[in-house]
Amino acid sequence: MGVVLPFEESHKDKASIAPLVEVTAAGMEQVNQAIIARTSSDVALIPQVARYLIDSGGKRLRPMVTIAAAQACNYSGDAHIRLAASVEFMHTATLFHDDVVDESDARRGKRTARLVWGNQESVLVGDFLLGQAFRLMVDVGSLPALDVLSNAAVTIAEGEVLQLGTAKNTETTEDEYLQVIRAKTAALFSAAAEVGPIIADADRAVCAAFRSYGANLGIAFQLIDDALDYGGTARNLGKNVGDDFREGKVTLPVVLAYRRGSDADRAFWSRTLVAGETGPAELDEAVDVLERNNALADTVERARHYGAMALDALAPLPESKCKDALLEAVAFCISRAY
Amino acid sequence: MGVVLPFEESHKDKASIAPLVEVTAAGMEQVNQAIIARTSSDVALIPQVARYLIDSGGKRLRPMVTIAAAQACNYSGDAHIRLAASVEFMHTATLFHDDVVDESDARRGKRTARLVWGNQESVLVGDFLLGQAFRLMVDVGSLPALDVLSNAAVTIAEGEVLQLGTAKNTETTEDEYLQVIRAKTAALFSAAAEVGPIIADADRAVCAAFRSYGANLGIAFQLIDDALDYGGTARNLGKNVGDDFREGKVTLPVVLAYRRGSDADRAFWSRTLVAGETGPAELDEAVDVLERNNALADTVERARHYGAMALDALAPLPESKCKDALLEAVAFCISRAY
Repeated sequence: MGVVLPFEESHKDKASIAPLVEVTAAGMEQVNQAIIARTSSDVALIPQVARYLIDSGGKRLRPMVTIAAAQACNYSGDAHIRLAASVEFMHTATLFHDDVVDESDARRGKRTARLVWGNQESVLVGDFLLGQAFRLMVDVGSLPALDVLSNAAVTIAEGEVLQLGTAKNTETTEDEYLQVIRAKTAALFSAAAEVGPIIADADRAVCAAFRSYGANLGIAFQLIDDALDYGGTARNLGKNVGDDFREGKVTLPVVLAYRRGSDADRAFWSRTLVAGETGPAELDEAVDVLERNNALADTVERARHYGAMALDALAPLPESKCKDALLEAVAFCISRAY
Repeated sequence: MGVVLPFEESHKDKASIAPLVEVTAAGMEQVNQAIIARTSSDVALIPQVARYLIDSGGKRLRPMVTIAAAQACNYSGDAHIRLAASVEFMHTATLFHDDVVDESDARRGKRTARLVWGNQESVLVGDFLLGQAFRLMVDVGSLPALDVLSNAAVTIAEGEVLQLGTAKNTETTEDEYLQVIRAKTAALFSAAAEVGPIIADADRAVCAAFRSYGANLGIAFQLIDDALDYGGTARNLGKNVGDDFREGKVTLPVVLAYRRGSDADRAFWSRTLVAGETGPAELDEAVDVLERNNALADTVERARHYGAMALDALAPLPESKCKDALLEAVAFCISRAY
């Protein structure tokens, strides 16, 4: 298993995820143990398939948020461990199903589980992990936490269905796109942040603060991901770049570039995202079109806006190492784009 | 919506589902309303896809069992309605995912949702329904009921993965096959039966009785379904016959016929289920091979055994119309094979 998120070298000027990793290290060790325990099954294929993705180097940002938020509310029990594992399972289940739905070939630089193990296995192991996520929540026994997390499960599915409607639809508005990512990404970040204060019996206002923090962090995170899929603002065209492009996904950079662009630009997006001409030459041209329309830089600006909302959401809370780490995590998420 | 299960004409000598339909009619009306309410969504595609399958004439046997079991324990609240709807949603979610996993073209005599709407939509609407199932349970707020149902969700997924390993494997033993259907079918019947007594605060022994009733009813139900896929014992080769055969599924009739059969019989199963020659002529021959080996009649005999266990499980309970209806439902399930 091992630590999944490597400590970043800390740059003086650049925000780091290191403080969040540090304040959650003890808890995340237990989360990782819970994840191993709950991916075991008498059906030998299940742990093999489940761990293929779980061990593949995800950042575990969502469960770290759960642990840090609980600690920021002075929670002293151990239920946050199971809730954090539950959140990670819900996330992983959606990745399994997403890769099938999107017919993706690569995730985190590895072949997707559906290519290695098959679509059938990916759908069913996703279902298994969703079931285990619910078992973990039920074990904790907090009905308010169950309420928040089961609502998130429904909202995520709604967001995924909504996204099918925006795929290859270059006329998608920014608001429509936001509605998709609020549901498919931000809802789980929001739930991940809120269940900590809930089990800590925090005030309603504190729960609402973390809910808002999580939702806005989630939107910012997704927008930066969208920008990174085109190399971010630094034209950093390493591995994993171009997945959204090849799948015909209309993400915010495209929404902005399409609406701002010339007729020729719009014809370009139709030829590529809609008609499917998405080879390396087209990807290169896509980055040019995005840059010409300032779409990547402005996607990052939009992300900054949601990041600022996340920071202000937590502003009234008392100072703590956990709060500081959660705040710096927002800046870190945005700094990934450079 | 309408009543989904048509009243069977009652034959003097033949068991009927009519008593179960009758004792649960008032409750099932509310269950149907809950199902309509919980399939609505701002995402317009979701109710369309969800109801396509939900309205397609399933028997709603599982929620009827939940309602009747609660009533048999003199439950006077209304939580059994939401739990019954939750059980039906879990069942429907697995149908959506099954049809994708099995690449099925028809279910209940209709084109599958995946053909009408697409695989993507079927996976995601299945996830939505699973989420709604959990929301319904959480609304009820009974942690013991949540425990039973969330365990069932995990077990069902395990059973589905296990079944992938038996598909096209003609060497599957009867015990291995039983392990699959205990998980993929019986676990949900068992949970459906047990949550009624649980919310009625029934004794442990009563809960265990219903759990056992449901599990054994579920096994009997599945075995009869397996026999019906080859026309039952009456060679009733109407619509929907041969689905398992065409999908290469090794069900109990095949397990028995393969183990009992001649070398030529075994070569036949390899040519058809494994190598995929499954046209109408082969299906006809399959029924011959099954009959020659008494495999359909003995599958029904095996079902009778589990049916008898279901009846004995409920034997110690006081007499009631609901108990009688649940007992007759077992006989009805088995009588479908003739």
